[in-house]
Amino acid sequence: MEHILWKNNELILLDQRRLPEKKEFISCRTPEETASAIRDMVVRGAPAIGITAAYGLALSAMLNREFDRDCRLLLDSRPTAVNLRWAVERMRKCHGKTGGNAAALAAEALKIHMEDIEMNRQMGDLGAALFQKPVTILTHCNAGALATGGYGTALGVIRSLYRQRKLKEVFADETRPYLQGARLTAFELAEAGIPHRVITDNSAGYFMAKGEIDAVITGADRIAANGDTANKIGTMVVAVLARYFKIPFYIAAPMSSFDLSLKSGAGIPIEERSRDEVAFINGKPIVPAASPVSHIGFDVTPGHLVTGFITNRGILHPPFHPDFG
Amino acid sequence: MEHILWKNNELILLDQRRLPEKKEFISCRTPEETASAIRDMVVRGAPAIGITAAYGLALSAMLNREFDRDCRLLLDSRPTAVNLRWAVERMRKCHGKTGGNAAALAAEALKIHMEDIEMNRQMGDLGAALFQKPVTILTHCNAGALATGGYGTALGVIRSLYRQRKLKEVFADETRPYLQGARLTAFELAEAGIPHRVITDNSAGYFMAKGEIDAVITGADRIAANGDTANKIGTMVVAVLARYFKIPFYIAAPMSSFDLSLKSGAGIPIEERSRDEVAFINGKPIVPAASPVSHIGFDVTPGHLVTGFITNRGILHPPFHPDFG
Repeated sequence: MEHILWKNNELILLDQRRLPEKKEFISCRTPEETASAIRDMVVRGAPAIGITAAYGLALSAMLNREFDRDCRLLLDSRPTAVNLRWAVERMRKCHGKTGGNAAALAAEALKIHMEDIEMNRQMGDLGAALFQKPVTILTHCNAGALATGGYGTALGVIRSLYRQRKLKEVFADETRPYLQGARLTAFELAEAGIPHRVITDNSAGYFMAKGEIDAVITGADRIAANGDTANKIGTMVVAVLARYFKIPFYIAAPMSSFDLSLKSGAGIPIEERSRDEVAFINGKPIVPAASPVSHIGFDVTPGHLVTGFITNRGILHPPFHPDFG
Repeated sequence: MEHILWKNNELILLDQRRLPEKKEFISCRTPEETASAIRDMVVRGAPAIGITAAYGLALSAMLNREFDRDCRLLLDSRPTAVNLRWAVERMRKCHGKTGGNAAALAAEALKIHMEDIEMNRQMGDLGAALFQKPVTILTHCNAGALATGGYGTALGVIRSLYRQRKLKEVFADETRPYLQGARLTAFELAEAGIPHRVITDNSAGYFMAKGEIDAVITGADRIAANGDTANKIGTMVVAVLARYFKIPFYIAAPMSSFDLSLKSGAGIPIEERSRDEVAFINGKPIVPAASPVSHIGFDVTPGHLVTGFITNRGILHPPFHPDFG
């Protein structure tokens, strides 16, 4: 199932907030609607929001709007994933070269989209080659087809492992507060018929202690030159646990997720989101009205906790050099 | 607010499943009703279920039932917390001594209850003495008044710190799947006017990395002779994080939580509970129907990760000797 579609000069997005209960699509006809869809998490996942923003800029050209203003609008929709900036810069270059030709910009957005899927397939196979015999993999959040143009980054490696009969089972952290693991990763794995189970985020340590996890693979929202990696809140927790239990911890990410302008993770902007997204589930409060809540969207995994970076150019290790991007 | 009440030969329990939305009480008139209330988590928390079981055995004597059978019934209601066994054994002794006198057994249950509150107050003050200047404490699950006869174990230390003006703030892990932190710890802290915030379990590492947490204090369900401690799932995760970030990690527990018949945590029975308790929140599914779920209730924190055990007899360190209990 495609979840980002460009059809009759309209951007159609699967509303990921409604999964797994309902498969509903919404359409974006303007850059504002596209920015709102990113901000409100109709679509999420670092590569997916980059692709979505690219289509949003194709809409801008089509409507003959002020391109720079729309670039800023889309850049501001979410702060942490660098793929958004990467895609906007690429569209900006195409806009400059083609004088803002709408058909050229739509073609460029589609190219970004298709290249992403291709990078994920390469990455999947390169990542799967890390393992010789059947393994059980733990993943956090959703770094699957839904988080990318298709196939997935961490879930792409898992798909390749499964195809090569080197996968025993996937443990999917439910990933509070948005439950991307419980809702989206489980949905993708169930659709693909890949053996899996959902666990609360709290339980990852328990299964590691029991020796049931062979490796951890997650995605990334932004990777600094020293390997520090921003990803969904809790990723660093899993990385610390993996180090404690001597389990390899891999990040799978395309080149568009690297930000080599940053020496370390200290410079990565970390998104804080609203109280209600934690304090209410399915419309009901789970926290007393009088209690404050902090809702942090991402954490930074120190580069030295990452066993290897699975990229479309191979398995890489920091420090990453500026000419690499 | 009292949450376990013995009134006119009836056991009245605050239904903790409904908090913080509603304060509803249910009554138990038989040992079966008491065992169900424990199993279904109307009341939870290691010391609290011990106290509840003691009252359940007072009901058994009152109704002139087969005492041994009721002891087994209550012992089987939940497996991990040793306080349940401790309380049942104490009631069994009283039954033997008094020939099953109903008034004596009710008095013994009340004594267990009152002693628990007194131990918590002692523990609170002993624990607070560990800190010289105002601190920010992270706690997991609910080890408060609601988890005990009153005052709380970990939250007892926090209450004492607050009274002594040595508390900056409390971070309460929401504690999936039952959300005891978001629902119960936050409820108690809000009622006491203690500064606090709720965070997703995933976020504890983020705030430790930022240097915002000075110490961790949690309760315990069962402590083995080497200090290995079973407590709510995720406690060991917090302990591993605390070690990584060089933050002291304390367990606060009364003597009734120690099981010195066990050399290590390997012998502690770990409760697994139902899929639905994870897969549904507020009546709605968060996991695809086709996806399996593992719901583990507890994990074991290795004794060497615990900076100190705050007990009513002082700050203790393993190995614990058999004559100590």
